[in-house]
Amino acid sequence: MLQQLFSPSVQHTLDLVGIFVFAISGALLAVRKNFDVFGIAVLAEVTALGGGLFRDVVIGAVPPAAFTDLGYFLTPLLAALLVVFLHPQVERIQVAVNVFDAAGLGLFCVAGTTKAYAYGLGLTASAALGLATAVGGGVLRDVLANEVPSLLRWDRDLYAVPAIVGATMVALCIRFDTLTPLTSGLAVVTAFVLRLMAMKYHWRAPRAWNRRSNVAEEDSPWPGRSSAGSAR
Amino acid sequence: MLQQLFSPSVQHTLDLVGIFVFAISGALLAVRKNFDVFGIAVLAEVTALGGGLFRDVVIGAVPPAAFTDLGYFLTPLLAALLVVFLHPQVERIQVAVNVFDAAGLGLFCVAGTTKAYAYGLGLTASAALGLATAVGGGVLRDVLANEVPSLLRWDRDLYAVPAIVGATMVALCIRFDTLTPLTSGLAVVTAFVLRLMAMKYHWRAPRAWNRRSNVAEEDSPWPGRSSAGSAR
Amino acid sequence: MLQQLFSPSVQHTLDLVGIFVFAISGALLAVRKNFDVFGIAVLAEVTALGGGLFRDVVIGAVPPAAFTDLGYFLTPLLAALLVVFLHPQVERIQVAVNVFDAAGLGLFCVAGTTKAYAYGLGLTASAALGLATAVGGGVLRDVLANEVPSLLRWDRDLYAVPAIVGATMVALCIRFDTLTPLTSGLAVVTAFVLRLMAMKYHWRAPRAWNRRSNVAEEDSPWPGRSSAGSAR
Repeated sequence: MLQQLFSPSVQHTLDLVGIFVFAISGALLAVRKNFDVFGIAVLAEVTALGGGLFRDVVIGAVPPAAFTDLGYFLTPLLAALLVVFLHPQVERIQVAVNVFDAAGLGLFCVAGTTKAYAYGLGLTASAALGLATAVGGGVLRDVLANEVPSLLRWDRDLYAVPAIVGATMVALCIRFDTLTPLTSGLAVVTAFVLRLMAMKYHWRAPRAWNRRSNVAEEDSPWPGRSSAGSAR
Repeated sequence: MLQQLFSPSVQHTLDLVGIFVFAISGALLAVRKNFDVFGIAVLAEVTALGGGLFRDVVIGAVPPAAFTDLGYFLTPLLAALLVVFLHPQVERIQVAVNVFDAAGLGLFCVAGTTKAYAYGLGLTASAALGLATAVGGGVLRDVLANEVPSLLRWDRDLYAVPAIVGATMVALCIRFDTLTPLTSGLAVVTAFVLRLMAMKYHWRAPRAWNRRSNVAEEDSPWPGRSSAGSAR
Repeated sequence: MLQQLFSPSVQHTLDLVGIFVFAISGALLAVRKNFDVFGIAVLAEVTALGGGLFRDVVIGAVPPAAFTDLGYFLTPLLAALLVVFLHPQVERIQVAVNVFDAAGLGLFCVAGTTKAYAYGLGLTASAALGLATAVGGGVLRDVLANEVPSLLRWDRDLYAVPAIVGATMVALCIRFDTLTPLTSGLAVVTAFVLRLMAMKYHWRAPRAWNRRSNVAEEDSPWPGRSSAGSAR
């Protein structure tokens, strides 16, 4: 019923690109946390595949794509290898990495929503799983690195909203029977551009009403944590 | 074979109440941790639905109820919205929130045990999954907020024991073929009242034998963390 | 097609031994973190069963063995009980515990790889899941205890490599159609001995190229954390 977003080989290549850039972000955090090479490889795998793994387990698509497609498994190892040897250079092109990460975000929210709907979920649930596909790997990355997930912090540029917009566009296209490679591509591009603009203009989401302190209460025993975080 | 605990519409309403109060507890922690509105919504969803999601994935009930029932998904968003605008007021009625949370604990441990048994698990495993349904969301909430799960800490009032008692009562009723809406309701009320009494009289579980230090060894580099915790 | 590694009763006994020693390691960390008796039981269960639970959910073997075999569920409780009353004695025989943990690592990486292959996964994916079975429980243990997973830290003796070697040996044996109880046993012993040697000679994995600082950048607000970690 649902047609492929793109031709299978194009889709597969786009998936691998998204996996690769997400893996780079996991590997870079592992280097910053001083993990050994296995820690770097594990964090690369988890960041790249965690979101899709969660989606596949929830919709009952087992074994998940992460374990049936060898390319999905090997790509993060390649990214980890690259970071192990070239991390100062990769850090220096952080801007390029961020652009690719934004592309991964756009691709994954659209592909995740489409796959969830193809497995029979409702439109709202499909969009929610599209969002989870796009951001889940990053949350797992931060949990394993023992950090507050970057997704949840107020002092980070918008990350969830572009994915929500992309996933919602796909859900609306399905609802009105207009999901084509063109509209899918448009949703990818919209999420991608929104994320780029959020980074460029430092768009941030508001916090709870009347809450303007910069220090989380739980953090009070460690003064400077939040400020160190926002300075990064 | 297993009859419904209550009439379907009553059961559904009770589920939504439990989800709502769990979501409130997640959203309040997110506000305290200074998360943005999306972080608040994510923590509300995870706290409210995490336990049931874990149970459903383990027993093979996919897609899980959290993704098939739109009300389950939207209720935490409503709770998050409320907390974003009214968190000082919600904090002030913390006692009321705690009472509702205790009710959620009672409802979820009973509903979780019943559902796991209906999917063919043994009695002990069903009770264990009932416990996991009731406390799983709170554990995920604390992990995402980068805190030691409140469930595991010695300086918190008993939380697991009431749920264990409720789940065990259901398992015993199934074993002796006396699970009726009445006995189920009794298990809910028992867990609920036990939790209320644990909060009122500050019942706490013992720690390991001969262990009376208040400071966890891993915490030693941050003096005052445990004491700050117990003062909260 | 795949024969049992060992006779069923021998296999089951070995599984229980592995579960028991993993549970001991979880319970000991819980005591060190000052958790109450329920926290100790939860951490024992999660450490012992987490890796296998993850594997079973991923390969679609639901309900997982952890919830269908009562012995799997009760063994960690026994380990927790032992640690609650005898933790100073258990700490004193830490060397013995480490030897058993190494045995558990060997057993679980081999059993995990074999089971994943039996459920239709490819050889690489099976080996990856064998590794996840062996190390997953320990990672969950550390995440719940709010620590950086020991598996990822550069200042810990090699843990993943022995499991990777064991899992790879099984995958190669399957590939060349020589998986027998003898070769399986050889893989278990190889992983076991490698882990023992890593502990004895403090083998460590390299970190990223040109990275020789002992302090993770994220840790800087808390001076002494990394050094405290490496002194442990």
